[in-house]
Amino acid sequence: MPNLSTLDRRHFMSGCAVVAGVALTSSGRAVAQESKPLPAYVDWKRPEAMIVHSNNTLETRREAFGTSLLTPEDKLYIRNNITAPSEAIVKDRDAWEVSIEGVAKPRKLTVGELKQMGLTTVVMVLQCSGNGRAFFDHKPSGTQWQVGAAGCVSWTGVPLKTVVEALGGPAAGAEYVTGTGGETMPAGIDPKTILVERSVPIKALDSIILAWELNGEPISLAHGGPLRMIVPGYTGVNNVKYVKTVNLSEKPSDARIQASRYRMVPLGEKAGPDDPSVWEMEVKSWITSPLTTAKAGEVQITGLAFGGINAIEGVEVSTDGGKTWEKAEFIGPDLGRYAWRPFVLAANLKAGEHLIVSRATDSEGRVQPRDMKPNASGYNHNGWLKHGVTVKVS
Amino acid sequence: MPNLSTLDRRHFMSGCAVVAGVALTSSGRAVAQESKPLPAYVDWKRPEAMIVHSNNTLETRREAFGTSLLTPEDKLYIRNNITAPSEAIVKDRDAWEVSIEGVAKPRKLTVGELKQMGLTTVVMVLQCSGNGRAFFDHKPSGTQWQVGAAGCVSWTGVPLKTVVEALGGPAAGAEYVTGTGGETMPAGIDPKTILVERSVPIKALDSIILAWELNGEPISLAHGGPLRMIVPGYTGVNNVKYVKTVNLSEKPSDARIQASRYRMVPLGEKAGPDDPSVWEMEVKSWITSPLTTAKAGEVQITGLAFGGINAIEGVEVSTDGGKTWEKAEFIGPDLGRYAWRPFVLAANLKAGEHLIVSRATDSEGRVQPRDMKPNASGYNHNGWLKHGVTVKVS
Repeated sequence: MPNLSTLDRRHFMSGCAVVAGVALTSSGRAVAQESKPLPAYVDWKRPEAMIVHSNNTLETRREAFGTSLLTPEDKLYIRNNITAPSEAIVKDRDAWEVSIEGVAKPRKLTVGELKQMGLTTVVMVLQCSGNGRAFFDHKPSGTQWQVGAAGCVSWTGVPLKTVVEALGGPAAGAEYVTGTGGETMPAGIDPKTILVERSVPIKALDSIILAWELNGEPISLAHGGPLRMIVPGYTGVNNVKYVKTVNLSEKPSDARIQASRYRMVPLGEKAGPDDPSVWEMEVKSWITSPLTTAKAGEVQITGLAFGGINAIEGVEVSTDGGKTWEKAEFIGPDLGRYAWRPFVLAANLKAGEHLIVSRATDSEGRVQPRDMKPNASGYNHNGWLKHGVTVKVS
Repeated sequence: MPNLSTLDRRHFMSGCAVVAGVALTSSGRAVAQESKPLPAYVDWKRPEAMIVHSNNTLETRREAFGTSLLTPEDKLYIRNNITAPSEAIVKDRDAWEVSIEGVAKPRKLTVGELKQMGLTTVVMVLQCSGNGRAFFDHKPSGTQWQVGAAGCVSWTGVPLKTVVEALGGPAAGAEYVTGTGGETMPAGIDPKTILVERSVPIKALDSIILAWELNGEPISLAHGGPLRMIVPGYTGVNNVKYVKTVNLSEKPSDARIQASRYRMVPLGEKAGPDDPSVWEMEVKSWITSPLTTAKAGEVQITGLAFGGINAIEGVEVSTDGGKTWEKAEFIGPDLGRYAWRPFVLAANLKAGEHLIVSRATDSEGRVQPRDMKPNASGYNHNGWLKHGVTVKVS
């Protein structure tokens, strides 16, 4: 069993049961959980399910995931890089225009037109690049996400490939799919410094969707309606909200969000163009129950596991901090390569303190590592140790 | 193309677009759609998605299904045989007790205890036995359900088989699984005449779940919380709400709801014990869009299809009332044998009136029939013709 004293308080906090905004410390003393009131634009979210870090950053509480296959929109995390456009753009959703560029016959298409070009649904984990940032020891700046900057949702729309083919196919030299968000650029600021414009490799064209529905309902403005570019298996930032331009471009965007932000930069270095962009997600899992206490005897340990860019293959659970492992079982149907799967292990727990951890394996045999090698901005944490929870069994 | 004059007004109404409670007749004149306000106990349902037939009968509007894989609880139909128990029973969900009888070691178990015995999730179509009653020509009495006394939801709980095995297995002679609802019996009425107690063949034991979650959330009282007996592939009435007794019985219940109600009775006859009980569901499908009008050209025709007790295998669509058929495509992941699948067909529609119908086939090769042979009480209608919609294309 690892030395529990090495787990910092923040890590411990992530394993705390939260009831009505109150968390318990290891001594059982109740403390206020850090959470602000819901911002007005998402006042329809469930307050008891969310940790509000700021106006633009809300995460789902670990205990709020339960066993659901799909995360309801009113519990889904929010991460906006800049302020969302006006609600006016979702008043007449079918009128929203997206400009398709970098194709043989570039043109603008309305959502109404896209709806008659094709229809598909993909279930996928949407996860912020910085999810798990709170678990890095070097305390990178940025939102201190624990596990909840992630959700599993279904997106319905038209395959981008269908649209591109209808417009004569990609132009020569296309290497990237670049999506530009429809946020209003404030005056007096160089747009390139704040523009939400992300490029992903052209190979993603096979799976990208231009989506107008989330979990079967029109996408809320907060989550990118009326139209969002969905790139299954890629971190949240690549799934451009209120997408107004899709360009099959020769080069990646030179907007700052692509050129120097969202890159895997070694500690102490400045981001350069050779540092890998935060694109594909890695295999990951975490425990959802129990989180603080349990009765001795048979306990159903549950969690969530996904493969990121690959399908999830299996997941193991350890109740002794990683000394011994048992294979957990997935429950419910497999919602496809990009979805997560709830899992359960029936374990016989003796009285005492247990560090419960989970370790997932993807379809390519990649295993969730014990520790995550730190990177400057704290992206992509999937180390199983820091995602563990300490449970008092009595 | 069948003679459209044979389609009665009620059938036509089912294909009408409904906007804010208003439907259009064939002449385009707006008429009030018959719907009462939401009853207080389900005032959290979405009014625009529901047709309220009565306090105990609410259906989902055909146009409200959209392309969702799972039906949100706030759009799910309601059919109560008698008034639900008091909200008090969902105040302390884990304290609810169910008596397991007809096993080697009968005993009562609380929901809290069940939660530590096992965990599974099944996605299934929940459908009222009378769904589609409005499409019978003989106008059986009872709620005039169109397509919306159905939804596809996930249930999480413990397999009944796991519980039965933990209690030493079925007692000798067990032939049925009989579930009894926890409704309060009013004084002065013979309980057998109103008791919600249903028996299903013992073979269903392999798939029955004692469920405490619907779509990943605690089941609302309206939908049978704190504990519901879920019998995948069987019509709604067999999925006993607030289940208080589960008995592996030698004989089926002698309560009226089992003994003489919910049986397939020939027209003009009285129900007898040899008339088949309404148990397993049949293959079925219906169109969800377009429902009234469309623009000439390529149109994405969508719908929902399921196999009932069997998996769904395929579905065809006809835009000429069944003269010619084309294979539709399923969209999104397969959620398992008991789930429905949304489907789409891209059709090129010419101006004029089209009767659009769908015809599903299950994994056993059973095909949805053109017409449903009438039965006295109007159960199990799955005839494709009456489920069609007339769409004006211009």
